[in-house]
Amino acid sequence: MTCPVEVEEKTVITLSHGSGGRQTSQLIEQVFLPAFGNQVIQTLHDGALLDMNCGQLAFTTDSYVVQPLFFPGGDIGKLAVTGTVNDLAMCGARPQYLSCGFIIEEGFLLRDLKRIVESMREAAIKSSVEIVTGDTKVVERQSQEPNIFINTSGIGRFLCKEPINARSIREGDAIVLSGDVGRHAMAIMAERSGLSFPEGLESDCAPLFAMVEALLEAEIELHCLRDATRGGVATALVELSEQSGMNFSLFEEKISVSAPVKSACEVLGLDPLHAANEGCFLAFIPQDRAECAQAVLRQFSTGKEACVIGQVSGRSSSPRALMHNSLGTQRYLYKLSGDQLPRIC
Amino acid sequence: MTCPVEVEEKTVITLSHGSGGRQTSQLIEQVFLPAFGNQVIQTLHDGALLDMNCGQLAFTTDSYVVQPLFFPGGDIGKLAVTGTVNDLAMCGARPQYLSCGFIIEEGFLLRDLKRIVESMREAAIKSSVEIVTGDTKVVERQSQEPNIFINTSGIGRFLCKEPINARSIREGDAIVLSGDVGRHAMAIMAERSGLSFPEGLESDCAPLFAMVEALLEAEIELHCLRDATRGGVATALVELSEQSGMNFSLFEEKISVSAPVKSACEVLGLDPLHAANEGCFLAFIPQDRAECAQAVLRQFSTGKEACVIGQVSGRSSSPRALMHNSLGTQRYLYKLSGDQLPRIC
Repeated sequence: MTCPVEVEEKTVITLSHGSGGRQTSQLIEQVFLPAFGNQVIQTLHDGALLDMNCGQLAFTTDSYVVQPLFFPGGDIGKLAVTGTVNDLAMCGARPQYLSCGFIIEEGFLLRDLKRIVESMREAAIKSSVEIVTGDTKVVERQSQEPNIFINTSGIGRFLCKEPINARSIREGDAIVLSGDVGRHAMAIMAERSGLSFPEGLESDCAPLFAMVEALLEAEIELHCLRDATRGGVATALVELSEQSGMNFSLFEEKISVSAPVKSACEVLGLDPLHAANEGCFLAFIPQDRAECAQAVLRQFSTGKEACVIGQVSGRSSSPRALMHNSLGTQRYLYKLSGDQLPRIC
Repeated sequence: MTCPVEVEEKTVITLSHGSGGRQTSQLIEQVFLPAFGNQVIQTLHDGALLDMNCGQLAFTTDSYVVQPLFFPGGDIGKLAVTGTVNDLAMCGARPQYLSCGFIIEEGFLLRDLKRIVESMREAAIKSSVEIVTGDTKVVERQSQEPNIFINTSGIGRFLCKEPINARSIREGDAIVLSGDVGRHAMAIMAERSGLSFPEGLESDCAPLFAMVEALLEAEIELHCLRDATRGGVATALVELSEQSGMNFSLFEEKISVSAPVKSACEVLGLDPLHAANEGCFLAFIPQDRAECAQAVLRQFSTGKEACVIGQVSGRSSSPRALMHNSLGTQRYLYKLSGDQLPRIC
């Protein structure tokens, strides 16, 4: 097997290939899957389930390149631990161990590195994970402001009976959203643009496993979980619709957007449904447990705005996610295209 | 517990913090361990052993930032798979699953990315591992030539009865080196300097697990394994001496250095013992099995130059690695200090 896609001699990688939207999907489908294709990676979930002859393990990786490094509600260190822990939670796994790889440009302030590392330590404690192995590379400084990239990979024990991914989504499933949307991307954008809001605008960056565990303890059957990071809730819904082969029907008025996020989106001309989150996820569960799930999630400070936002309407050969708004009109959601928000995670 | 080291306001990260030598050790001891300290990471081995209630797993991570991306004997893709697979082998584990995180500068040629990915695919097949999960981030281009960084993390099943790390090294152990040294670093340096050699000078980049497996099948008790990457054989020996609290006694004439590596080292004024390898490792084993281990390793094309290079002479409060040369003089080995060879892996 060799990579089948023809590549023009001069085709280059652009920021949109990393935005989590359409071009990212193309890169994965045309370059990575043909080369690495195996049963595990084909599920296209954020983490892999590994059979180790002793129950299943979830395994996931993410690199963090956010700019600025420090932002309201967090920093690259908190994000690097929380984001990977959340990917494990989205596999239905209890996060246990993390690795950590630093790529640092020479000239980076040791003081800032220590601040980031301290923040990782706190986030690891909060999520009950241990950072057990690491690596540091220093590279030549390229820009005025020396930079840092962090990769974390994570391992957790799978807790469920059935696999949790897009292929397990069923007709009639309720779609539950765990919180209000857009806070992470808008906090970063506001920080970059020098905007400030009287109500305050902080990233929602927070660990999600406790909420997943509570749903499991309430014996709610989890079909699919997805955190709405790069590309926002809209991109996550479109991807899951495509991967499951199901149409989704959604109600815009059910999706909570905080006042400062609304203001920031209006000022910057952005759609909160395409804005990245770092502490909010979608759950696909049986319709008859939807109210219970909503109640369970609302017990958490990060889940106060949890709401049933729609349902899986049925199988389709050209699956779409259809959003109904309060005026009675409808629109198809689309994946984030281009580089609306580079380097937010 | 908080980070105890005082940091000057203006202290910055330098290339030497990433060279694998003394400053890297300081960074780990003064910044990472105080923050992440747990029993697993304290072993300071290249990978972590995790108890998953079903036997032990090895877990490791490495970022690859080599320049140039393509070099004689390999490229960043081959290196990224082989290097991490080798770290698992050095834990005494059978490499099974890899994750893969790309950080790519915008403008990078898609053709080059496909070439790198194809090379990762080949290396994964050669090492019988599957790449099961991944992530891609694209960042703004900083330099004339757009760059790529690759992180791989790996999981493998631990195969031995006793832990394999510096703490298991015993007085009287034989020290076996699996091959000739310096080829990876010198191939990179020669490529950068535009030097060429009639005999050819290629990186030794190669998977090591098959050799480890053969040693285990020959029922040779492995106390410690270490691939001699950043900082070379000398740095690896000094670190293991410190971590084990043992003096080592070594014989320079037993260490094989190929003719082109000797020439390149002379031209560039470098010490082959400090030059990085990517296909060569140190094994600490019982003295009475040393000849057998040497014979087992020499059956492999990558192990033809395998040799017993010394022994563990005993416990010490200030442990050192002492090198005897053929003239009868002796010198203490030291860790690579500074940035002799940045960005070779």
